[in-house]
Amino acid sequence: MKQATIIGSGLVGSLWAVYLSKQGYKVNVFERRTDMRKAKISAGKSINLAMSFRGWKALDEMGIGDEIRKISIPMYGRTMHALDGKTTYQPYGINNQAIYSVSRGDINCKLMDIAEREGNTQIKFSEECIGADLKNGTVDLKNTETGKLSEHTSDVVFGTDGAFSAIRYNAFQKTDRFTYSQNYIEDGYREILLPANADGSYKLEKNTLHIWPRGRFMLIALPNFDGSFTCTLFMPFENHEHCFNNLTSKEKVNNFFKSVFPDFFEMMPNIADAWEDHPLSSLAIIRCFPWTNGKAALMGDAAHATVPFFGQGMNAGFEDCSALYSLMKKHNENWTEIFKEYEVIRKPNGDAVQDLSMLNYIVMRDKVADPVFLLQQKVERRMAELYPGNYFPMYSMVSFSDIEYQVALTKGKEQDKIILDLILQNNITNDTSPENIDKFIHRSFGEKIKN
Amino acid sequence: MKQATIIGSGLVGSLWAVYLSKQGYKVNVFERRTDMRKAKISAGKSINLAMSFRGWKALDEMGIGDEIRKISIPMYGRTMHALDGKTTYQPYGINNQAIYSVSRGDINCKLMDIAEREGNTQIKFSEECIGADLKNGTVDLKNTETGKLSEHTSDVVFGTDGAFSAIRYNAFQKTDRFTYSQNYIEDGYREILLPANADGSYKLEKNTLHIWPRGRFMLIALPNFDGSFTCTLFMPFENHEHCFNNLTSKEKVNNFFKSVFPDFFEMMPNIADAWEDHPLSSLAIIRCFPWTNGKAALMGDAAHATVPFFGQGMNAGFEDCSALYSLMKKHNENWTEIFKEYEVIRKPNGDAVQDLSMLNYIVMRDKVADPVFLLQQKVERRMAELYPGNYFPMYSMVSFSDIEYQVALTKGKEQDKIILDLILQNNITNDTSPENIDKFIHRSFGEKIKN
Repeated sequence: MKQATIIGSGLVGSLWAVYLSKQGYKVNVFERRTDMRKAKISAGKSINLAMSFRGWKALDEMGIGDEIRKISIPMYGRTMHALDGKTTYQPYGINNQAIYSVSRGDINCKLMDIAEREGNTQIKFSEECIGADLKNGTVDLKNTETGKLSEHTSDVVFGTDGAFSAIRYNAFQKTDRFTYSQNYIEDGYREILLPANADGSYKLEKNTLHIWPRGRFMLIALPNFDGSFTCTLFMPFENHEHCFNNLTSKEKVNNFFKSVFPDFFEMMPNIADAWEDHPLSSLAIIRCFPWTNGKAALMGDAAHATVPFFGQGMNAGFEDCSALYSLMKKHNENWTEIFKEYEVIRKPNGDAVQDLSMLNYIVMRDKVADPVFLLQQKVERRMAELYPGNYFPMYSMVSFSDIEYQVALTKGKEQDKIILDLILQNNITNDTSPENIDKFIHRSFGEKIKN
Repeated sequence: MKQATIIGSGLVGSLWAVYLSKQGYKVNVFERRTDMRKAKISAGKSINLAMSFRGWKALDEMGIGDEIRKISIPMYGRTMHALDGKTTYQPYGINNQAIYSVSRGDINCKLMDIAEREGNTQIKFSEECIGADLKNGTVDLKNTETGKLSEHTSDVVFGTDGAFSAIRYNAFQKTDRFTYSQNYIEDGYREILLPANADGSYKLEKNTLHIWPRGRFMLIALPNFDGSFTCTLFMPFENHEHCFNNLTSKEKVNNFFKSVFPDFFEMMPNIADAWEDHPLSSLAIIRCFPWTNGKAALMGDAAHATVPFFGQGMNAGFEDCSALYSLMKKHNENWTEIFKEYEVIRKPNGDAVQDLSMLNYIVMRDKVADPVFLLQQKVERRMAELYPGNYFPMYSMVSFSDIEYQVALTKGKEQDKIILDLILQNNITNDTSPENIDKFIHRSFGEKIKN
């Protein structure tokens, strides 16, 4: 029987185990942590994730999308909360397109169950990867409870152990000519749980992603099933008027929320007490190359960890699974050929999803509060309606299609520039009625797009 | 007694041990390798280095420059070897300014002797750094012969263990928000020993650095004391007409040298037999930040490993010693203050020496064969003569001064552009007589520079 090893039973590792099991592989997954299904432990630092097209495509490809849909909440747009408490709403797409809030823990547990259910996958917990012979497909393991050392050899090995991948650190990084970078941005984040009302109802509109955009920083909120929201404050660590290092007392936390998020403070006046429920965490973009070496490949965050601002980390990792699966079929499971093509086609997309994520940080924390930007998005959404299949805004290419990330990035930037220029030249900011927008679009693009 | 730990007894570690011993520190140096003074082993990959102003300044500051001068050979300029065997010569500076060829092994052995001679330094060999508690100044060591584990705590710890620094990898890289990148360039190198003539004489002019510039690749040669030259071929690994991966047989090696370095091949017709005497090696630029954490600091290649094309790797590392020494005096040995200022002032210079090194690769392999570039250098050298102390070409700022690398880079690029533009505008390429060059300089700069 064909043997595969996966390091890390996180989201990508568990899903990839499903793929490989279904292709007839005996799969051994080695996970450093204990079984999160048995004890309430955190799988990572962030609690909520947004599933979008690429994620669903991979899950549906394995026939398990519907099981995950049951534990997901659609968010059809963004609700922006201004300083004065006024909200504006902007749909993400057309025809009820949505991104879906899922709990990282719930989906991870579910994927592990599904992987094991097929019978070909065994997940072994408390097994830390301390080294590897990539050429031979051998991983060196240490049991974190007993200290016992072991090694395990198989036909093919996958590193899906996240941003701080042990197999990348202990094996890939030690190989000659391995390009590697870890760049922390100046901002960190802290999660805050906004509880449900006493009657279990939501304190905010449920089916939307809430943003309090404040220029250099922002607060966001994603819905959970129990009526609560998982909120995240993204902000510089230091050297700014508003930064984490300034919030050194309950009083300062209170004053900060009162002054910059007054409507939020009203909903959660005990914010200062809840402030330290979740740790202050850092954010990095990690790039490396090559992604494959001998019998081993990196996938997901281990290959291309990104900052979270486009909600694409999990989606990009799941798309790695789809991509490898296509290549398995194309190359008839010749892993040498598969790996060679995998890293060539996926690396530019890994870089692009990271660039897109940084771009979207500026959008979320700053641009969504800019009337011209909102108008631009309105024009783009209307264009997508008027020319279905012929015009895709950048956000839609990333979230509602499987157009390559690198194409979404390049084409999206071009489109943004063209549309912004036209809006400014045509002065339509004076009359943003649907009729005028339609006239403007027809005048500017009607002929071109139809051709 | 004040206690210091140094990881790595390479060039920077040994020199820094001298500095610290002389300031009254008891210094323990832990070196992973065996004692290179007892067995002929290689301290690293490159055999020759070029000492220039910054290196001498640090050595002289400790009163040991003259001991090293005895084992160094001045090179007053570059000798370019064209395809047809014709040579052109270009002095590096004015008034017999020179860079100095030294054997890495010889200078390293000498520095270790000097460090131990003071009595305060002990170098312990076969001791590998496997971890560290940076906050407490504790390093974890493993004896590579006995396997024995130990730990050692001191007031202050320095990582001078080179591009692949173990303390950086095992401790710094594991800290939160540590920015790190290792970027390999597409070129590698292979050293070749060009032996002396039978009578011990040099086969090439001794007091010059020889270059065979060939656009995308180059061969260089530096003199040794025994009449031989250490030659280095720098070339892409793959994907080029001329690349290492193409040279797969003795015949191919011979044909390559015959066609692109015919004069060299004549001096060394057995090149194909000597081809594998030295390994094919890769070249990387390594950047990281912060350079200090708690009681520990990185220095030299461990902090800012560079490609070798400006001959500044060792010089930059020795300058780290000078810089830290100045700060020790300024801050009265308060290491918290010293470290805080050290990384702020030195990091931009580490980045700059890496950028300068990449720029000089283009100069060496390509530009030195370009008549306009050579004229430009001639003009610059003449300007340095005419306006001593008021005009410094980029090469001189880097090699013959201690002007900060970041200033040399910025100012040098500005100067290059101005002078190149003036040369092209004034068409002096038609008449490059000294008189015309002087006229041109006076017309263009006379007044400005005097002011």
